[in-house]
Amino acid sequence: MQDKLMLMIPGPTPVPERVLLAMAQHPIGHRSGDFSKIIAELNENLKWLHQTKNEVCTLCASGTGAMEAGIINFLSKGDRVLVGNNGKFGERWGKVAKAFGLDVEEITAEWGKGLNPDDFKAKLEADTEKKIKAVIVTHSETSTGVLNDLETINKYVKAHGEALIIVDAVTSLGAVNVPVDEWGLDVVASGSQKGFMIPPGMGFVAVSEKAWKAYETSNLPKFYLDLGAYKKANAKDSSPFTPPINLMYGLKAALEMMKEEGLENIFARHKYLTQITREGVKALGLPLFASDNDAALAITAVAPDNHDAEAIRSAMRKRFDIALAGGQDHLKGKIFRIGHLGFVSERDVYTALSALKEVISSL
Amino acid sequence: MQDKLMLMIPGPTPVPERVLLAMAQHPIGHRSGDFSKIIAELNENLKWLHQTKNEVCTLCASGTGAMEAGIINFLSKGDRVLVGNNGKFGERWGKVAKAFGLDVEEITAEWGKGLNPDDFKAKLEADTEKKIKAVIVTHSETSTGVLNDLETINKYVKAHGEALIIVDAVTSLGAVNVPVDEWGLDVVASGSQKGFMIPPGMGFVAVSEKAWKAYETSNLPKFYLDLGAYKKANAKDSSPFTPPINLMYGLKAALEMMKEEGLENIFARHKYLTQITREGVKALGLPLFASDNDAALAITAVAPDNHDAEAIRSAMRKRFDIALAGGQDHLKGKIFRIGHLGFVSERDVYTALSALKEVISSL
Repeated sequence: MQDKLMLMIPGPTPVPERVLLAMAQHPIGHRSGDFSKIIAELNENLKWLHQTKNEVCTLCASGTGAMEAGIINFLSKGDRVLVGNNGKFGERWGKVAKAFGLDVEEITAEWGKGLNPDDFKAKLEADTEKKIKAVIVTHSETSTGVLNDLETINKYVKAHGEALIIVDAVTSLGAVNVPVDEWGLDVVASGSQKGFMIPPGMGFVAVSEKAWKAYETSNLPKFYLDLGAYKKANAKDSSPFTPPINLMYGLKAALEMMKEEGLENIFARHKYLTQITREGVKALGLPLFASDNDAALAITAVAPDNHDAEAIRSAMRKRFDIALAGGQDHLKGKIFRIGHLGFVSERDVYTALSALKEVISSL
Repeated sequence: MQDKLMLMIPGPTPVPERVLLAMAQHPIGHRSGDFSKIIAELNENLKWLHQTKNEVCTLCASGTGAMEAGIINFLSKGDRVLVGNNGKFGERWGKVAKAFGLDVEEITAEWGKGLNPDDFKAKLEADTEKKIKAVIVTHSETSTGVLNDLETINKYVKAHGEALIIVDAVTSLGAVNVPVDEWGLDVVASGSQKGFMIPPGMGFVAVSEKAWKAYETSNLPKFYLDLGAYKKANAKDSSPFTPPINLMYGLKAALEMMKEEGLENIFARHKYLTQITREGVKALGLPLFASDNDAALAITAVAPDNHDAEAIRSAMRKRFDIALAGGQDHLKGKIFRIGHLGFVSERDVYTALSALKEVISSL
C-alpha cells in the first residue's frame, strides 16, 4: 500500500514526527549566534547520551566516516592494531586500517558468534613491548545481530595500558549501556540513523584525553576528518566546516525526546524489545542466528531452516509493507534481520511478529 | 521578529518549501528497490546540471569533504600541483593538498581580485617535463565575491596536456555556466547548500575519464572519500555507505525545480540579480569590493569606507531580520557580503537593498 511502509531494519530506523518536522524548518546561518546556541545544547546533550565529559565531535558523514575519523586521528603509519572481525562492519574497520597503512592483526569469530575476549587477552598480554597501539572493536555487529563483550575486552585493553580502545558503537549507542567514562572508552563512533532516531547524514566521535594525546603525534593524512579541527570549533560552539544544519535540528528534537525518556528506560526498552522479538521468533519455530548470550539489543537475526530468508523478507514487504533487512555477503538468503532500534515500541514488535506468522504459514 | 529571518548569505541559501517538505518525509531503506530508483533519477539529473556525461558522485559530506575527495583520489604523494589562492577557499585547498603530502605551488592574487590566467600559463608552459599533475582552481571565491576566469585557465591546462583541472565549483554550479564536458573539466566539486537550494550535508564530485585513469595509480590513503567506491555503487544505482536519505529527497525536489526553470534561465537570473545588486549598492554610495570584471554571480561583497561593515550587518540583522555574511580573516569588519545564490528572486534583492538604504541612513 502506497506510503504505508514500516521500517524494521537496523538503519535508517523509524523517525518520530517531531524530528521530521524539526528538520523541515528553514535553515539559519551556521555562523550565527543563534546557531551557536544550538551547537552548545547539542554538545551538552551528546555528552549526556555518551555518559561522558569527553569531547564529542559531530561530523557531516555516515557512521563509516565517523569510524574512519576515530581510527586515523589517533594512529600513525605502521602502528600495530588489533581489529575484532565477526561480521561486515568489523571486516570494514580492518579495511580502513589497512588503507591507511596500519599493521592490522584481526581477531576473528564466526559470523553470528561473539568475539572471544580471551583472544584479545592473549594478544595483549603477549605484547610486552607495547607495540599494539589500538584495539578496534565493533560493539554491536549490525550484520549478524551480535553484541560483542566490549566491557571484558576493554578490561584487557586497560590492563595492557598502552593501546587505545576504539569502538564502533553505531548500533549500540542509545540502545544498550555504553558508559564511556566509567569504562574509559577512548574513541566511540556512532551514526545518526540508529539509536539517535534521526535520518542518516551525521556521525559522532567521542574522544578521551588519552586519545587526544595520541592525536598530537598521529601522522596519518587528514583534513575533512581531522578531529582536531572539530575540537577547536567545539570550544567556540562552532563547526570547522558547514554542518548539516537541518539534520541538527532533528538531532536537537531527538535528544530532547531521549532525555524525556531517560537513559535507563531507553536501555530497558531495547532489552525488552529484544526479548519479545526472540521469544516470538522462537514461538514461530524459526531458529535465531545468534545465541541468547551473544544477542544484540538493536537487531535480531533469524536463520529460517525451512524457508529462503529472502522469500520471507519479500513477502513481509509486499503483503505487509514491513521492511526487514536481509543477510549480507555469504549470509544473503540465509538470514533476515528484524530491527528494533531507536523509535520502536512494543506494538511495533508484535505487529512484525503477527505479520511474520501470517507469512510463514502462507509460504 | 521571531522566525522572520531572511537568508542573504552565500550558504546555506534559501530553501524552497517544496524542498523542506520533501525532506520531512519518513526515510525508506537505502538498500531498497524504491530508493535505487531515486538514486538513478538523481544521478541523471545531476549529470544534466553538470552538463556532463561524466560520473557524478554524491557524498555525505560538506563541500570541503567533496573537494578533498576531488584532490586525494587523483594524485599521489609528492605530486606537484598548482593551487590558485585568492581567498579563504583557495587557501584551504592548498592546505588540503599539503596535508596529503603534495608538492604545492600557489598562484596568488590579492583577495578581491581575480587570479591572473597568465600566471598559470607561464608555470604550465615552463613545465616541459610535465611534472605538474593538477591545477586546482576555485571558480567562484565565496570569501571575496570573485569569479575566477576558469575558462581561460583551463585552456592553458589543456595546452599542458598532462595536468588535471580540479575545480571548486561550490558557489558557481547552478549559478553560472559550468559546461563540464564542453570545457573538459576533470574534477568538479560542489555542495548542496548553494545553487542546489537544499540544506547543507551533501557534496558532489563530477569526474572525467582522464581523472579516473589517474585514480588507478593514485596512492593517497582514503576509504570514506574513496570515489572508486562511489563509482562502483553508482553503476548499481546504489551508494557505498549509508547516504543522507532525507537530504536526497530534498535534492530530488530541488533538481526537479531547476529542470522546470531551465539552465539558461537560472544563469540569466543569477546574472541579473548580480547586476541589480551591484547597481543598487553603488547607488547607495557604497564601494563594491570586486570589480565588475571579477564579480561573482553568487555573492556581492561590499567594502563600505565610511562605516564598519559589521555594524551594517548587525543592523540589517536586528532591524530587518536579514542575514548577510561578514568578511573572513583580515577582511572581518572591512566587507560584508550579500548572497543572491539559489532560490533568490528579484524581489529578495530589492528587499535587501531597501533595508540597506534605511540602515545606511540611520547609522
